[in-house]
Amino acid sequence: MKKLEGYRGISLEKLLEANVTIGDRIKIIGENFTYEGILMPRAGVCDDKHIVIKLNNGYNIGVKVTPNIKIEVLKRIGKREIQRREVIKKQRNLPKVSIISTGGTIASRVDYKTGAVYPALTAEDLYYAVPELEEIAEIDAEILFSIFSENMTPKHWEKIAEKTSKKIEEGFRGIVIAHGTDTMGYTAAALSFALQKTPIPIVLVGSQRSSDRPSSDAAINLICAVTAARKAPFAEVVIVMHGSSSDEYCLAHRGTKVRKCHTSRRDAFQSINSEPLAKITVKGEIEMLTEKYNKRRSDRKVELKAKFDPKVALIKTYPGMTGEIIEFLTDKGYHGIVIEGTGLGHTPESMFPAIKRAIEEEIAIVMTSQCLWGRINMNVYRTGVELLNMGVIPGEDMLPETAYVKLMWTLAQTRNLEEVKRIMLTNIAGEINPRSSHKYFISNCKG
Amino acid sequence: MKKLEGYRGISLEKLLEANVTIGDRIKIIGENFTYEGILMPRAGVCDDKHIVIKLNNGYNIGVKVTPNIKIEVLKRIGKREIQRREVIKKQRNLPKVSIISTGGTIASRVDYKTGAVYPALTAEDLYYAVPELEEIAEIDAEILFSIFSENMTPKHWEKIAEKTSKKIEEGFRGIVIAHGTDTMGYTAAALSFALQKTPIPIVLVGSQRSSDRPSSDAAINLICAVTAARKAPFAEVVIVMHGSSSDEYCLAHRGTKVRKCHTSRRDAFQSINSEPLAKITVKGEIEMLTEKYNKRRSDRKVELKAKFDPKVALIKTYPGMTGEIIEFLTDKGYHGIVIEGTGLGHTPESMFPAIKRAIEEEIAIVMTSQCLWGRINMNVYRTGVELLNMGVIPGEDMLPETAYVKLMWTLAQTRNLEEVKRIMLTNIAGEINPRSSHKYFISNCKG
Repeated sequence: MKKLEGYRGISLEKLLEANVTIGDRIKIIGENFTYEGILMPRAGVCDDKHIVIKLNNGYNIGVKVTPNIKIEVLKRIGKREIQRREVIKKQRNLPKVSIISTGGTIASRVDYKTGAVYPALTAEDLYYAVPELEEIAEIDAEILFSIFSENMTPKHWEKIAEKTSKKIEEGFRGIVIAHGTDTMGYTAAALSFALQKTPIPIVLVGSQRSSDRPSSDAAINLICAVTAARKAPFAEVVIVMHGSSSDEYCLAHRGTKVRKCHTSRRDAFQSINSEPLAKITVKGEIEMLTEKYNKRRSDRKVELKAKFDPKVALIKTYPGMTGEIIEFLTDKGYHGIVIEGTGLGHTPESMFPAIKRAIEEEIAIVMTSQCLWGRINMNVYRTGVELLNMGVIPGEDMLPETAYVKLMWTLAQTRNLEEVKRIMLTNIAGEINPRSSHKYFISNCKG
Repeated sequence: MKKLEGYRGISLEKLLEANVTIGDRIKIIGENFTYEGILMPRAGVCDDKHIVIKLNNGYNIGVKVTPNIKIEVLKRIGKREIQRREVIKKQRNLPKVSIISTGGTIASRVDYKTGAVYPALTAEDLYYAVPELEEIAEIDAEILFSIFSENMTPKHWEKIAEKTSKKIEEGFRGIVIAHGTDTMGYTAAALSFALQKTPIPIVLVGSQRSSDRPSSDAAINLICAVTAARKAPFAEVVIVMHGSSSDEYCLAHRGTKVRKCHTSRRDAFQSINSEPLAKITVKGEIEMLTEKYNKRRSDRKVELKAKFDPKVALIKTYPGMTGEIIEFLTDKGYHGIVIEGTGLGHTPESMFPAIKRAIEEEIAIVMTSQCLWGRINMNVYRTGVELLNMGVIPGEDMLPETAYVKLMWTLAQTRNLEEVKRIMLTNIAGEINPRSSHKYFISNCKG
């Protein structure tokens, strides 16, 4: 971390004048206010009018800089403190966990001018912000990207998978990937297919509220994620996030069976058509919630298959929908389309000619349901039977998002429709339950 | 009902030979089987090789007809039985409920040759199949269509709304609309906007399993729906379906806040971002679950606004999505697009140019979230702020499906973007909660 990273203009002048460093405990005195706290770094995109400090209560605030403010150093972080931490870490000889940061709220900071959040904190900052991590593992932190997860693409998945595979080969006990929550479910599915036979846990983690907010879930999610990476008995790709609206525990959800189901709740991530894999408490206890999981195996070598065909679309059907979007995708040379149909796997009849033509032109069409819970069964109603006869591939109990990711992954291996069908109908990473269970449903529940 | 409706070929010959009528109790004797039951009608699309009878256990089965089978009449239904029922009905002087049948599983029968289900039972058949209805209300049954709900279009919504409005004016105590479950949520939202200020309950009802199956929910859903239509204190558009996996009660969900969340469970319909309106038991008790609802008012006149602009699309975003589908819809002259974005209301940046152009060309763009639960908030992250600045309309806590229906309804009234925005942001039929409550969520629940 640089001495005054991210500061410029009047803020930088004032800080240089006071001869302070990021990490120092300082006091800022204005005309009608006084604040005390740790000087925090800022993102490059921020304005130059605010200095950010972490108060004793854990809040970060931006203090407006005017020519008249005065800055005093209360306590310097100093080299000795940094060295002392290094020594403690080495003495402990804790297992090594790799944190790969890709961006998102968990790795973000607020621009106090616009109030908007920018993905800008480095992985080191994360570590610095959550000192409890030191007690759990020796952390190797690295920034891979710094983007909002809505801008993740299959190319990013490939890079995350490659980096993760490299870290696995380097011998880490577990991998943590900090990620924005918006598309974390898609990335978790992608890594589940791309990193098969992983010998260790691969844990995606995010936060729903940035660490500046009093109700932030960032620290607890990170503590649980590092705990899982260090000592969970499973070796799978999972998402670890708050398990309830309290701060007591997190849940590890299987990467192919999880989606973000709430825009803002901290327990937004839910397993669909599956139970969560494990419960992880802040105190470091791990309770497995299922007996069916892949175990840690030091003798196993990860199989990297990190290619995704970008010519795939996911479309949701609705009343009055025609076939014109499918016609368009066919004309555009798409290789596959996942349909989020209705009920057991239906589309309006008005889409039949377009679907038929697409399949004739060797485009793989996979059916999933916008119900999300339950299983595709295209043998019950005439609509389903007719779509099956055209060659539509039933998506079993896969989430539409997982089917989308899997189809991209499959089409990167083969364009032969029979082979695509075979792979799509084979359970590869827990995405298909051999049998449907009605027990995983939400009925009559209040949060 | 015709004497031998739906039968033809060898089946018809055999039945004519035995001089039987639909409704008669018969015995069919084959070489190595004997079946007793009530002769049921068949759909026109069926094969001519099977005779369908309802067994004592409630199952319908198809008995294969060979030249050697023998049919005996055990008990004729006779005119007297039909007349007796008519007399009982009139003597009771029960409130009148209108059942409008549009098709779907609740009004369907199985083709025993292909095993597929056809939407073919008449509303009278429904009534005939659920004799309990006689005790609840005097039923006026009418077939409007006989289609699978995946084939419903905005044109159908208009016709259902018009028919319902007419029935309301005729003075019924309540309206029941039998509908396929696949798109029942969309139709419920459409009727909520099209039939404002209804003085009586408008109850959509379906079934997840056809009445031939032992676990069918058809009878109980219909009983609860007719109960609600007859005596519920609310005057709103609702969906009444099983409230749990048991057969004890149904729930009435507000038409704008409900979706089908399971492909096959009987309690698939769930209220999202809202509690259900009421609980209705098979015994006829109604318990209101909220205090916020529109009450029955005999002094009120329904306002029919049954126009929907079909040039609207609903698209879901995903990682790697480009703007080309929006470009295509813009070129095609669409008037509105509902985006099912991620998280608080985001899309990949790669879609920004297409969204900007669409809005410049006067296309209304409304943002909703694929999370389903929670609320859009585009002021938190830079992505949201930029989309807002382009003119994207935040969809508050509306379901994507409801926002899609509402945008079609709005654009049928005005194409002025400011006016569209005003209407979309105004709560009209319970689709927008003024404030978000975190309590309506599914976390940590097992069905």
